[in-house]
Amino acid sequence: MSFSFTLIKKDITGARLGMVSTPHGAFQTPVFMPVGTRAAVKAMTPEGLRDAGAEIILANTYHLYLRPGHEIIKELGGLHCFMNWDGTILTDSGGFQVFSLGKLRKIDETGVVFNSHLDGARCVLTPESAIEVQQALGADIIMPLDECPPYPASRAYIEESMARTHRWAKRCKGAKTNAAQALFGIVQGGMHADLRKASANALIDMGFDGYALGGLSVGEEKPLMREVVSFSAPLLPESAPRYLMGVGTPEDLVHGVENGIDMFDCVMPTRNARNGTLFTRRGKLVIKNGLYERDSRPVEEGCLCYACRNYSRAYLRHLFMAGEILSSMLNTAHNLYYYCSLMKRMRAAISEGGFNEFKKGFYTDIEAGNMREEP
Amino acid sequence: MSFSFTLIKKDITGARLGMVSTPHGAFQTPVFMPVGTRAAVKAMTPEGLRDAGAEIILANTYHLYLRPGHEIIKELGGLHCFMNWDGTILTDSGGFQVFSLGKLRKIDETGVVFNSHLDGARCVLTPESAIEVQQALGADIIMPLDECPPYPASRAYIEESMARTHRWAKRCKGAKTNAAQALFGIVQGGMHADLRKASANALIDMGFDGYALGGLSVGEEKPLMREVVSFSAPLLPESAPRYLMGVGTPEDLVHGVENGIDMFDCVMPTRNARNGTLFTRRGKLVIKNGLYERDSRPVEEGCLCYACRNYSRAYLRHLFMAGEILSSMLNTAHNLYYYCSLMKRMRAAISEGGFNEFKKGFYTDIEAGNMREEP
Repeated sequence: MSFSFTLIKKDITGARLGMVSTPHGAFQTPVFMPVGTRAAVKAMTPEGLRDAGAEIILANTYHLYLRPGHEIIKELGGLHCFMNWDGTILTDSGGFQVFSLGKLRKIDETGVVFNSHLDGARCVLTPESAIEVQQALGADIIMPLDECPPYPASRAYIEESMARTHRWAKRCKGAKTNAAQALFGIVQGGMHADLRKASANALIDMGFDGYALGGLSVGEEKPLMREVVSFSAPLLPESAPRYLMGVGTPEDLVHGVENGIDMFDCVMPTRNARNGTLFTRRGKLVIKNGLYERDSRPVEEGCLCYACRNYSRAYLRHLFMAGEILSSMLNTAHNLYYYCSLMKRMRAAISEGGFNEFKKGFYTDIEAGNMREEP
Repeated sequence: MSFSFTLIKKDITGARLGMVSTPHGAFQTPVFMPVGTRAAVKAMTPEGLRDAGAEIILANTYHLYLRPGHEIIKELGGLHCFMNWDGTILTDSGGFQVFSLGKLRKIDETGVVFNSHLDGARCVLTPESAIEVQQALGADIIMPLDECPPYPASRAYIEESMARTHRWAKRCKGAKTNAAQALFGIVQGGMHADLRKASANALIDMGFDGYALGGLSVGEEKPLMREVVSFSAPLLPESAPRYLMGVGTPEDLVHGVENGIDMFDCVMPTRNARNGTLFTRRGKLVIKNGLYERDSRPVEEGCLCYACRNYSRAYLRHLFMAGEILSSMLNTAHNLYYYCSLMKRMRAAISEGGFNEFKKGFYTDIEAGNMREEP
């Protein structure tokens, strides 16, 4: 099965229900993609991911290129086989990590030269090599090399960078030889509406299987990020999936979906889990809080995740305080279940034509939690 | 169901096949008990433990007494409920940890005063309170407070300590009020055959549900430890289970079983797993070794553990090098499976009357591994 996207329904708000098919299965959108940076979603087995409701995960090209190396993964049968995940995988291009983790980077028309954050080794990533690496990894959806400019940056720099990102996108499209992999375009343009429009149009002209909004969640204030999402999403074709990269909180997801975003990825549920912050309908629960020392209730009443089905807040608090690995495992299972369920609830709401009502309930629940001493 | 032990068969070597029944299930012996120090076997869920073949696990009274506290665990329904393990649990008395982890400890006839290794708080453990704590935890098998003398220690001190340990054992037996819990006696006496005999006899006179060999694996050389096991195990009643505390390597288990030991616990499989050392029939495999960088084979060909069923050495090496939590999870699953399977193989050998043959094959396999570059 090759890549396809079907728009099933559009809510009056702009929220979309869709279906993505890939060589490794089909799933409905809007969807959240857990992040498996180094070919593993931290503290989760593939079975645990399925149990949490994950259908597509993300892996990081930059990290896997440096270690263990894409050639090794290719030799071992590709990323799906290597990490024992038979669902859909999306790999980013590595651009974001080069700009956030790479040292002494130098960028020119050819590509980007940087030093590995692991051992300082000099590395080169070009649009062509980013595709080559991602073809070796064998993900179902791959991304072109782009520059993710810092925030703030001058308008002049954003324009220059964006134009180069477009030229790179074209080279990426030209370099791709594996028809089984879908290639998305990445819209840049900083926080400027006219540049975002120009970027979207340039990419649409080239034609991609889906379109991503890049360059967000890079330090800008939340209202600004949301504003950019609001004016950028409608610039994208109705007939292709729209992916908001690296975002975000549950509230960000609700906002994104309302504005027609179909795909999200973020380390927040997994990272917060390891730090002991758990997501619930009534807001965040900080498990180390002494309130939970003797609390026999699950993290969230009615939650059907593995942790809530089997363990009390008191036990989860104990594991966290003791620094047990099982703490990360159970907290991650809960948070990913929360994120995936949130998407499922949104899909159901869109399907029933009641996204606005869902949104009202979502915020009522969170506010109810904030008013109480104890979630 | 209350506690019982049935000796099913005795091999010509001295190895015993038995059956232990407890309020949380029955299992055959010889058996290995994974260590769940702080009410969690590190990096394992209860389902993972079952999948690895575990039927009984151990938890540490000292650690749980200090954090979260036995009263809290009792309030939450006891240890089985707290940690979601419905199989058998054995708790040690805390004595070993007081002597190995506690600071500024002071021992007298009453009990032991020590400072918590967590926050320095002054704590008292007496034979009576050790039983009280273990009754609150609610394990199926509990242990009396004993002193685990250091090695080396003078014969005079060993004698004095042993006599006190016997008086404590009697007080523990007197303090126990919960008939559903089995209480084992702990034989001390250092490395002295006559003292071990005196200790065994003193405890047998008092009458316990099972008998443990304590004070071993405390720094003495391996041949000495094995010698003590060899002359001590036969001092114990045929009709009760024999538990060798805190031991050991796969070779130690084979030696112990041959000498009539029925139960073992050790942190080795779980701790080594986290350090990247994996047990196989052909010896240990150090997963970070560059040899495994592109090795598509499982850790051990034919092994049916979760890790070997699903992952290559190359992937496990990658996870270890990247410091992924999944590395600890998969390595622990493998090592516990190895330990539990080793016990299963020994039980089968005893059942078929071929323990000697098993032992020959066990050492042949290990030597074959040592001769090869690559296990």
